[in-house]
Amino acid sequence: MLTLADAEKLTAGRIFGDDSVAFQKISPIYDAGPEDMAFLADRRYAEHLSVCPSRALLVSEALGSLEGGPTNRLVVPDPHAALVVLLPVLHPEPKQRWGIHPTAVIHASATVDKRVAIGPNVVIGADVSVGQSVDIGANCVVGAGVSIGTGTTLFPNVTIYARSALGERVIVHAGTRIGVDGFGYVRSTGAIVKVPQMGDCVIENDVEIGANCTIDRGSIGRTVVGTGSKLDNLVHIAHNVVIGPRSILVAQVGVAGSTRTGEGVAMGGQAGLVGHLKIGAGARIGAQAGVIGDVAPGQVVSGYPARDHRTYLKAMARIMRMPDLLKRVDRIERRLQPGGATSPEDPG
Amino acid sequence: MLTLADAEKLTAGRIFGDDSVAFQKISPIYDAGPEDMAFLADRRYAEHLSVCPSRALLVSEALGSLEGGPTNRLVVPDPHAALVVLLPVLHPEPKQRWGIHPTAVIHASATVDKRVAIGPNVVIGADVSVGQSVDIGANCVVGAGVSIGTGTTLFPNVTIYARSALGERVIVHAGTRIGVDGFGYVRSTGAIVKVPQMGDCVIENDVEIGANCTIDRGSIGRTVVGTGSKLDNLVHIAHNVVIGPRSILVAQVGVAGSTRTGEGVAMGGQAGLVGHLKIGAGARIGAQAGVIGDVAPGQVVSGYPARDHRTYLKAMARIMRMPDLLKRVDRIERRLQPGGATSPEDPG
Amino acid sequence: MLTLADAEKLTAGRIFGDDSVAFQKISPIYDAGPEDMAFLADRRYAEHLSVCPSRALLVSEALGSLEGGPTNRLVVPDPHAALVVLLPVLHPEPKQRWGIHPTAVIHASATVDKRVAIGPNVVIGADVSVGQSVDIGANCVVGAGVSIGTGTTLFPNVTIYARSALGERVIVHAGTRIGVDGFGYVRSTGAIVKVPQMGDCVIENDVEIGANCTIDRGSIGRTVVGTGSKLDNLVHIAHNVVIGPRSILVAQVGVAGSTRTGEGVAMGGQAGLVGHLKIGAGARIGAQAGVIGDVAPGQVVSGYPARDHRTYLKAMARIMRMPDLLKRVDRIERRLQPGGATSPEDPG
Repeated sequence: MLTLADAEKLTAGRIFGDDSVAFQKISPIYDAGPEDMAFLADRRYAEHLSVCPSRALLVSEALGSLEGGPTNRLVVPDPHAALVVLLPVLHPEPKQRWGIHPTAVIHASATVDKRVAIGPNVVIGADVSVGQSVDIGANCVVGAGVSIGTGTTLFPNVTIYARSALGERVIVHAGTRIGVDGFGYVRSTGAIVKVPQMGDCVIENDVEIGANCTIDRGSIGRTVVGTGSKLDNLVHIAHNVVIGPRSILVAQVGVAGSTRTGEGVAMGGQAGLVGHLKIGAGARIGAQAGVIGDVAPGQVVSGYPARDHRTYLKAMARIMRMPDLLKRVDRIERRLQPGGATSPEDPG
Repeated sequence: MLTLADAEKLTAGRIFGDDSVAFQKISPIYDAGPEDMAFLADRRYAEHLSVCPSRALLVSEALGSLEGGPTNRLVVPDPHAALVVLLPVLHPEPKQRWGIHPTAVIHASATVDKRVAIGPNVVIGADVSVGQSVDIGANCVVGAGVSIGTGTTLFPNVTIYARSALGERVIVHAGTRIGVDGFGYVRSTGAIVKVPQMGDCVIENDVEIGANCTIDRGSIGRTVVGTGSKLDNLVHIAHNVVIGPRSILVAQVGVAGSTRTGEGVAMGGQAGLVGHLKIGAGARIGAQAGVIGDVAPGQVVSGYPARDHRTYLKAMARIMRMPDLLKRVDRIERRLQPGGATSPEDPG
Repeated sequence: MLTLADAEKLTAGRIFGDDSVAFQKISPIYDAGPEDMAFLADRRYAEHLSVCPSRALLVSEALGSLEGGPTNRLVVPDPHAALVVLLPVLHPEPKQRWGIHPTAVIHASATVDKRVAIGPNVVIGADVSVGQSVDIGANCVVGAGVSIGTGTTLFPNVTIYARSALGERVIVHAGTRIGVDGFGYVRSTGAIVKVPQMGDCVIENDVEIGANCTIDRGSIGRTVVGTGSKLDNLVHIAHNVVIGPRSILVAQVGVAGSTRTGEGVAMGGQAGLVGHLKIGAGARIGAQAGVIGDVAPGQVVSGYPARDHRTYLKAMARIMRMPDLLKRVDRIERRLQPGGATSPEDPG
């Protein structure tokens, strides 16, 4: 339970109306009940304001003076940033219980910190190192020689292949596979022969990886996901890829082998990058883009094959001008025919 | 074992030929052996009819009088609908054994109906509620506070995150993750900071979800998959999405955050929808479409960026007219040059 | 540890420089340290040669005489093929320990060879058959009636649905689901009714399947992945699909129901094929292509809707000529207006 006054202190926002109003929950404006604090950060949802029955509103400065709905308001520069501080107070995490479940199967040679949470049926291989405050969910499998840094969390049913290295405060969601053999073959007299995949897979500090992702190990050399990068669900990272620090990869992105990206790159959902590319720092790759060439730092690309976003939009617009162009050329040809009309009165 | 006469009674089809012919199995016409009932529902496979050695044929009315192949035939309006009734008789499910495997780890505070099937190594958290006739496959993990309605089936290796709610008669295939943290961050002085994902994830009655899907919980508010909707494998549903009832999402579809779809929407394989859209009831979204704007009820869209399906097909056709158009403009320019040919005899 | 002389014998390459130089590891040229053998197979990485501190270089014939970097060189026709023989010597696999972990739950009716490795928490159903030298990773679930051939490996957390058949020397990576119910429904008075999925799923010899893939069983009939084919991560194969032998499916490919492909087909990442197609032997389907029609043997297709790769590239090039074409037509129209310029000096 928080009052608007409490929330103001936590967020340094400004209150309009009654600061003693209390709420237990923050809800999207289209769902919020009378007891909730309604949340409005995007003008597309402002239409719900007039019928919102909530006693309080968390709203951005841009939308804070819109009429209708709750008159008791906390106006903040970034409502999402306010959630970062308010939600943990409203919904405190259950206290982590440290301990190793008796059904966990831990190899005698593994080094496991005393303060860890290891769930039922977890399997930990030889020579694994598990740091302090690590939380490994039920039914995870951690291969031989893996290291897991302080404060890292694996949700259930994750697989970490042998010798992968996870840094500190990493979060890996359910069903993700890290350090998978890369997709490398040579053809030999008709057969397709596997090239052994012996490289490393390194997940640096503060990375979060969504559910059911696949991150390959290097063939030789290594695959790296850089510090602070965030991957959504069902993302595929091939062998020897390097994702730079503080990058954002939305769901179902695929990055093919040996491509290297700079710091702070953003990739939209379902985008695909072929192998051996260099993607410059701060580049932005549109949803579903198919990138088949290098991208300069800061460049924004879209479409397939991906090119400069504005060029792409122009090309699409040009296609839409085709029917008009066809009509104009028809008209010109008619004029040029013997006996064709040539005056401006030509009805065309 | 069924005879054609048995099958006629079950399906209300019409028999041609010998109704005492018996079969144990129904097979696609291109694979069917002499003992099988061959299956023909699609004209593309009619070419296999003449060499089909089967003793009986299940066929649609539209194709029922084609010559060749089995002369003993069951002709029905919809052969796939006939499979719905015939296959369970030919291949009765092994009787479900109710019981809880001794290796399952069930929290003392969970409420589990007496008639359930809980497989080996299943992990069930605190305050979980499991209804009657629920079947939970081996190695599933069910987080704290989850509720699972009557008659729901989880195939093996599924993860249900804490506090998700599954309705009645839901089917969840292997490796699917429900209630995953959504992909929400704010930037703060260079770092990317996680917005806590505290919302709900609701799977309504009679939903079927394929293998290795990912369904996020709400950030605040909730994610909903509506009654009777069917999701194929590897589908991604982001936080705060609402999928309307009785919708069909083919494999590898991705729906970004807060998009809401009406009843009876169909999405082709690998289609992607950006966030915050409204998709009207009965809309149809083509395979691989990239939807970046609202779609009206009943509208059919294709391509990237997705637009009206017929407009899209016209645009593609226009591109194919470009070479001809270029030639025509070349010819016009030559005519207009001093001394250029201007007569219709111009060879162009 | 190998010397260049050892490596020459194993690969039949040619040595330049000192053949007694020894190394323990092969690394990509951009990562290789002084003790490593650097690896150079692609001209795009030749720029790293001049600053490479390694004592030895494994290099292709095409690049073998480039100046700079290590002078002790093993020059081979195909450096990737050399890795196939060198890496197992440098990184010998830990000796496989045969045995069944005491936590594995194996049905009494299963037939399991004496020389197998079955990890912790593996669950094996009734009437399963497990051949010699099979290795089943921790937390895998193998359904009733499955057969697994000699020398096959399942990485952890895999699910094999009932009655699927895996051949010999198959490799299945973590989290893959084989024999999943296909996506088949009929509509009946508003509801969407499941068609029972009773068919088979056959993975032939020497297939490798990446992580988190989904392979459906047949509805009736069967789904087949042909001998020696290789699937990357997150690939989806729908019911009744037949993938021909020795094919390559890169990550995130999706193949819809009943499509059949010939021998030696290659599909680029994120490509999608609709159902009921015939793809000829040796066809090549570009990354992200959307294939909606049959593809002839040996044909190369790209784009959406996918068509001949060269036609597609031409169409894209034509779109890029649109702005020029628009200008030319503007100019023609100005000339044709009364008083319009018609001389070649027209500035246009």
